Amino acid sequence: MQNFSTLGIDLQHKIDTKTKPLGALGVLEGLAYQIGTVQKTLTPSLQNPHILLFAGDHGIAKEGVSPYPQEVTAQMVLNFTRGGAAINVFAKQHNIALQVIDVGVNYDFPADLPIVHEKAGKGTANFLHQPAMTLDQCKEAIWVGKSAVRKLHEHHCNVIGFGEMGIGNTSSASMLMHLFTGIPLEDCVGKGTGLDDTGVSRKKEILQQALKNSPITSEADHYEKLKYFGGFEVAAIAGAMIRAYEDNMLILIDGFIVTSALLVAVSIHGRQVLDNCIFTHTSGEQGHAKMLDFFGVKPILNLGMRLGEGTGCALAYPIVQSAVNFLNDMASFESAGVSSKS
Amino acid sequence: MQNFSTLGIDLQHKIDTKTKPLGALGVLEGLAYQIGTVQKTLTPSLQNPHILLFAGDHGIAKEGVSPYPQEVTAQMVLNFTRGGAAINVFAKQHNIALQVIDVGVNYDFPADLPIVHEKAGKGTANFLHQPAMTLDQCKEAIWVGKSAVRKLHEHHCNVIGFGEMGIGNTSSASMLMHLFTGIPLEDCVGKGTGLDDTGVSRKKEILQQALKNSPITSEADHYEKLKYFGGFEVAAIAGAMIRAYEDNMLILIDGFIVTSALLVAVSIHGRQVLDNCIFTHTSGEQGHAKMLDFFGVKPILNLGMRLGEGTGCALAYPIVQSAVNFLNDMASFESAGVSSKS
Repeated sequence: MQNFSTLGIDLQHKIDTKTKPLGALGVLEGLAYQIGTVQKTLTPSLQNPHILLFAGDHGIAKEGVSPYPQEVTAQMVLNFTRGGAAINVFAKQHNIALQVIDVGVNYDFPADLPIVHEKAGKGTANFLHQPAMTLDQCKEAIWVGKSAVRKLHEHHCNVIGFGEMGIGNTSSASMLMHLFTGIPLEDCVGKGTGLDDTGVSRKKEILQQALKNSPITSEADHYEKLKYFGGFEVAAIAGAMIRAYEDNMLILIDGFIVTSALLVAVSIHGRQVLDNCIFTHTSGEQGHAKMLDFFGVKPILNLGMRLGEGTGCALAYPIVQSAVNFLNDMASFESAGVSSKS
Repeated sequence: MQNFSTLGIDLQHKIDTKTKPLGALGVLEGLAYQIGTVQKTLTPSLQNPHILLFAGDHGIAKEGVSPYPQEVTAQMVLNFTRGGAAINVFAKQHNIALQVIDVGVNYDFPADLPIVHEKAGKGTANFLHQPAMTLDQCKEAIWVGKSAVRKLHEHHCNVIGFGEMGIGNTSSASMLMHLFTGIPLEDCVGKGTGLDDTGVSRKKEILQQALKNSPITSEADHYEKLKYFGGFEVAAIAGAMIRAYEDNMLILIDGFIVTSALLVAVSIHGRQVLDNCIFTHTSGEQGHAKMLDFFGVKPILNLGMRLGEGTGCALAYPIVQSAVNFLNDMASFESAGVSSKS
């Protein structure tokens, strides 16, 4: 482990003396610096990378906030187990292990499927009329997330991304975004999986009504906000992020839903969680760019994707690996005998 | 091979029925469509990927247009042969074969180095006072590029990127950009490998003077422009692109210098060359975004990189592969038994 007091200077010196013009690797240089800083070393490495994909159902889906029926959550979980979804394809491409965790799908999966069975409930309640979760359910979901990360840390995983599946969960994320950032609710709502303009207007009305019906305001406690409007998968991811930070792992931040979970994690555990976060992409879901502005960050990719599942993490992963690789494997001006700048 | 008349419809249908919301893979969907269209198949593949890195020296380097001395071109070529440069690291990471071609470095490399020795000259002449190349040299460099691609095509390579190394070559690219796009010369000039503001002003003055001293205008023939202001590596890349298009390969377009070669290739061979081009990144060199606007394209990555060598191609390659993979390997709504949108 590097002497902490000079680590930053030494990292920057190592980056600056590689055989390239100063700063010429752009975003990769900042990533290399961040990863070296988190791992407290001049020779960082990515070990046993995982994506944890948490699935849960949402009572609000009954209100028609998504063009897809609630059954799709379970159907997509089955699709994950058979390797047919986008995240399966991309995780396999990059040798990222994928773990699917049922933290609250409204369906009884056969016990022998390659799913971690950790239901905190069978779908949340409809937050148009009542809290989505009880406080016990909410804490259980957080524990599920923390527990999953703890196990991976024991297996030397030091870089982790999170994905989600849950029909209706952009509605949940929009509510959390509003309550944790103070951005007007209407600016937090978007097309989700593909609503048309009429659908988006309707979704906005329903969510405004839900807010009005609830006792929750921006001043409420974070657990109150989370249990009223969150989802099992969002709570689990927030817990998982906190644990990943405590275990000093690199945390790959995906899109709109996952970033709403980060708002929760930061509210609970503090802004230092962000030190370990690598923002992988800007989603096509319109509120995501505003969340990223709230954090003051610019992600690696901007490919107009809005799929969730952790697909942004998987696609950006090789670029994170490239940042580590150039830091470890490129020659320096001195070692290569290349003349430096005059 | 797919029936050409329905290929576009069939490709779009295949993309749209994958288990994801319509359009949710953003840029990847357009890439999959393009690659399927180029390869005329619903099941495209990337085979034997290569990056050809052409190196050449520039007489204009004598005028102090770069903060690095001309010797760095040869030193970096030696660095490539030892695996110490950024492109070595990134090409290795993605199993992309890297071929280094000396098409005009002002240095005699030992014959046994892993370099293709195809000098069309030992550095160009200084275009401040005279044409950079003779017409014979220019045509020879084009031939070197075409010939290198032809050989790879015989080895079933169907996707190719180009890199370059040549101290002073942003000056050459700026001149070509001005002459082939009509954009005012001062808007085509940038920091290159890292000039400060005074250096950029001086570079602009030198290039304005070079233009004044020359008989070349926007109306000149493309070979006249290329031989007067081009470089051996730029001419070789232009030729290589034309041949890659003729062999129906996918062409990965890197940064400022490589895109200036594409301006030449399109001028010589026509805009259809663009059908096979995948724009991999927007360079931090300020003129590059304007070149991309000229072509009306938006690249995959925007990481503030300005290194050349084909590093943008290498970093974007896994995303191009992801586009192919999702098209081939994801389940459809029907095959996965997932309910589609209501």
